[in-house]
Amino acid sequence: MVSLGRVAALVVLVFSLGTQSVAAEPARPNVIIVFADDLGYGDLGCYGHPTIATPNLDRLANEGQRWTDFYSAAPVCTPSRAALLTGRLPVRSGMCSDRRGVLFQDSARGLPSDEITLAETLRGAGYATACVGKWHLGHLPQYLPTAQGFDRYFGLPYSNDMDRSPTAPRNASVNPKPEYFNVPLMRDAEVVERPADQTTLTKRYTEEAIGFIKANRDRPFFLYMAHTMPHVPLHRSEKFVGRSRRGIFGDVVEEIDDAVGRIVQTLGELGLDRRTLVVFTSDNGPWLSFNEHGGSAGLLRGGKGSTWDGGMREPAIFWWPGTIPPGTVHEMGSTMDLFVTCSRLGGATVPDDRPLDGVDISPALLGTGPSPRQTMFFYRGTKLFAVRHGQYKAHFSTQPGYGGEPAAKHDPPLLFDLGRDPGEKRDVAKDHPDAIAQIRKIVEEHESGLVRAETQLEERLTPQ
Amino acid sequence: MVSLGRVAALVVLVFSLGTQSVAAEPARPNVIIVFADDLGYGDLGCYGHPTIATPNLDRLANEGQRWTDFYSAAPVCTPSRAALLTGRLPVRSGMCSDRRGVLFQDSARGLPSDEITLAETLRGAGYATACVGKWHLGHLPQYLPTAQGFDRYFGLPYSNDMDRSPTAPRNASVNPKPEYFNVPLMRDAEVVERPADQTTLTKRYTEEAIGFIKANRDRPFFLYMAHTMPHVPLHRSEKFVGRSRRGIFGDVVEEIDDAVGRIVQTLGELGLDRRTLVVFTSDNGPWLSFNEHGGSAGLLRGGKGSTWDGGMREPAIFWWPGTIPPGTVHEMGSTMDLFVTCSRLGGATVPDDRPLDGVDISPALLGTGPSPRQTMFFYRGTKLFAVRHGQYKAHFSTQPGYGGEPAAKHDPPLLFDLGRDPGEKRDVAKDHPDAIAQIRKIVEEHESGLVRAETQLEERLTPQ
Repeated sequence: MVSLGRVAALVVLVFSLGTQSVAAEPARPNVIIVFADDLGYGDLGCYGHPTIATPNLDRLANEGQRWTDFYSAAPVCTPSRAALLTGRLPVRSGMCSDRRGVLFQDSARGLPSDEITLAETLRGAGYATACVGKWHLGHLPQYLPTAQGFDRYFGLPYSNDMDRSPTAPRNASVNPKPEYFNVPLMRDAEVVERPADQTTLTKRYTEEAIGFIKANRDRPFFLYMAHTMPHVPLHRSEKFVGRSRRGIFGDVVEEIDDAVGRIVQTLGELGLDRRTLVVFTSDNGPWLSFNEHGGSAGLLRGGKGSTWDGGMREPAIFWWPGTIPPGTVHEMGSTMDLFVTCSRLGGATVPDDRPLDGVDISPALLGTGPSPRQTMFFYRGTKLFAVRHGQYKAHFSTQPGYGGEPAAKHDPPLLFDLGRDPGEKRDVAKDHPDAIAQIRKIVEEHESGLVRAETQLEERLTPQ
Repeated sequence: MVSLGRVAALVVLVFSLGTQSVAAEPARPNVIIVFADDLGYGDLGCYGHPTIATPNLDRLANEGQRWTDFYSAAPVCTPSRAALLTGRLPVRSGMCSDRRGVLFQDSARGLPSDEITLAETLRGAGYATACVGKWHLGHLPQYLPTAQGFDRYFGLPYSNDMDRSPTAPRNASVNPKPEYFNVPLMRDAEVVERPADQTTLTKRYTEEAIGFIKANRDRPFFLYMAHTMPHVPLHRSEKFVGRSRRGIFGDVVEEIDDAVGRIVQTLGELGLDRRTLVVFTSDNGPWLSFNEHGGSAGLLRGGKGSTWDGGMREPAIFWWPGTIPPGTVHEMGSTMDLFVTCSRLGGATVPDDRPLDGVDISPALLGTGPSPRQTMFFYRGTKLFAVRHGQYKAHFSTQPGYGGEPAAKHDPPLLFDLGRDPGEKRDVAKDHPDAIAQIRKIVEEHESGLVRAETQLEERLTPQ
C-alpha cells in the first residue's frame, strides 16, 4: 500500500508542476460544449448514479465546477437546442409548438436565419467553429449548421429514432438495429451515409472532434459536440458492449464519458487544457417511459417532456483549469446562459437588437460573484407551465411528459420550495402567498413584453 | 481570474509537497469511524443531493474512495450498530426483535458482554479507544461503551427521540425543543446532563473527538464517532441555523459535514492525516415518514425500516491519504466488514471462535484486489427478507418501513438487477430463474449454519 500511495502523490505533484509551468492565461478560451441527449440529472457518477461509471466526467467535476441548479430551456430536443445556441426562449424564435414538439424528417423549416447563434458570434470574433453530432434545428440546406455559423458539420440532422423503416418492429427503439432508422449521417451539407451506422456514431463523433481540435490548435475554436446518445435507440461501439453494470444505457453513457476523456486528453497533449473551457450538459431530462433504455433524474420529479424539474434540470460541469475555481455551485444557470457567457468570454459581440433570455454567468464560473440568474421559465411547447424564482417554483399547469393526458391547470399554482424539497413533493402554496404573488408579477412582466414568433415546427414537406 | 487560478494551483502544489514529505507509512493506522444516524443514500453532495452542501465530505470522497454499494447490516438503529461493532448479523447477537426493533429507555438489556467489539480488538492491539455520540446498545452500566472496549464515552445512550416528556406535543419530533425528550448525556457511566441540550450536541461531540485525538497523537487510536443527528428531533448549533437551502435537515447535515472537516483539519495539524483511516457512513436509510425532517435515498427505493435498498444502502467514504487510492468503488461492502477490516489493519486479532459476517475489504480499499463480499443479507428484525448476490437481489418478503402494514410474502421472490435497475422498479424474476436458484441455495446454506441468539431487545425494566 505504501507504493500505491507514493504513486498517487507523485501523480498529483507532477500534475501540479505541469499546470504551474503554463506562463500566462489567454484572454479568450477555446469553447467546447458537450451536449448529451436525454441524459438525466442522476445519470453520472458525480451526480450520484450508483452503477454508471463516469470517471472522466467525475474528474472534470472535481477539478472544475459541478452545478446543481442548471436548466435546459425546454423539456424536449429541438427547442432546447435552439435556446442553447441563441440564448433565447424558443417562443421567441418559433422553435416550439404545441402540436409537433420537435422537428421531424418531413419538417420543412428550421431555426430562422435571422436568429444569431453562438457559432455566429464566436466566428465573428475569429473563432473556428464546428458542430459535431446531432443538430435537430432543420435538415434542409438553409437550416444546417453550415448555414448557422459553423465552419464544419458532421453528424445527424435530427433524432436517431426518426425516419423509421416501414419494416421496423414496434419496439425498434429498445430492440434496435441501425437499419430500422433511415437517418442520414452528414458532412457539412452532404449525406455521407444512410442509414447511419449508429453503433460507431459516438466513436466517430469523437474522432471528428479531436481532428477539429488538432487542426485548430493555433487559433481559438468553438466546438459544439452534441452527442446523439443516450437518446433511444441506444447504440455503442464494440468496445463498450457489456461494459456497464447499468446495461446498454450505461454502456452508452460510459462511451460518452470516455469520449470526453479523450478530448480532454487531446487538450492536454496540445497544451490547450488551460486555454479551453469545457462545458458538459444535456438537452433535457431522461426519457422515463423507455424504462431501462431511459435514464434517471435522481431524486428529481418527472423526466423528458415535463416541466417538473426532472424534465429540465441537468448535470452541468464547467472545467477550465487555472481559471474556474473548483467546487459545487448551487447558483441557478441555464443552457441559454451559455450563449451570452461564452460570447463574452470569447470577446464576441452579444446582439443588442433583440431580447435575450440568457445572462452572463461568468461571475459564478470565475468565483467573482453570484450568478445573475434568479428566474427560470418552464415552457412546454408554447405554453408557460411553471416559473422558478429563487427557491420557489410555481406550477400553473402540469402534464406528464408523455402519455397523452391533458394538462392540469392550477389556480392558485402549486408551489414548491426547491431548496427544502428538490423532489417537488410538498405543495406549500398556502404557506407562501407572497412567493406566488411575486412570481405572478414576474409572469406578467415577462408576458407583457414577449413577442412570440410564428412556429417553425409544424410545416411539412409533404402534406399528410 | 488569473490570480484565482494561480492560487488554486499553488494550493495543490503545496499540498502535494506536504504529503510527499512524510517519510514512511505507519503499519497500523488510527481508525476514525464517523457514523451518521438516518442519513440517506442521497443526502450528501457527492452522492448527488442538489441542496445540501457537504464540501468537507465531498473533499474526502474526492481524495479517497466513494463506495456506491455499501450496506448497513439492518434498516434500524440498534441492530445496525451492533453489527458494525461486532462484524456479525444481529440475529447472532440477539440484537434484533420483531416486536421491539430497537432498545428503548426502559430496556433491561443490551449488547451481550461475550460479543467482541471492534473497540475490544483494537484495544487489545494497543489502541486508545473512544466512543463519542449515540450508543444505543444498552444504557445500563454493564452495557455501556465503557463495558465494551471503549476507554472513554461521551454521548447519548439511545435515540434522541426517546424518553419523551409527558407534556411534549404529538409532533414533538418535528417541532422540537430539547426539553421534550428527557434523554441523558453521559460521560463514561455518569449522566452529566438531562435532558441533554440537543442544540449543541454535534458541536460538543466534535470538541470531544478533537480532544481525544489530540490526547492520543502519539499512540494509535480508534474513535467511534456516532452522531446523534440527523435523527429526529433535528437540532443544530446557532451557527448552522438557517445555513442550508435544505432547511433544518440540511442545517444538521451541514454541521456534521463541518464536524468532519474540523476533525480532518486536526489530523492535518497534528501530522496524522497520512496515518489515519477515516470512514464515514450511516446506520440506516432516511426516515421518509418525517418528510422534510427526514432525508433522501436518492434514486433508491424505500427508506429506514425497510429492506429495499434505500433502507440499508448508505453513503460510504474511505479516506487515508497516501494509502487508499482515490476513486469511485462499485464493489459491495457492509458496515460489518469494518470490524474485520479495521481489526486487521490495526494488527488486532480477529476472533476465530464464532461465525463472523464481516469480510476483509482491504483489498478493495488498498486497490490490490476486489472486495470479497459477494452477498448481502437483508434482515428485518429476526426475519430474512431479502438477499443480494452479485447484481441480483431477491425479496422473499417486503414491507413498508413504517406504517403497520403486514409483510407481503413473495414466492417466487421478487428479483431485481441492481446494476441495471438500482431503484428496484422492474421485477425480472421470470427472466432469471438461475439467479433465484442460486440465491435460494445461499439462503439454505446460511440458515442451516445459523445459530440464533435469544433477543436482547424485548425485556423491560418495568413490566407494562
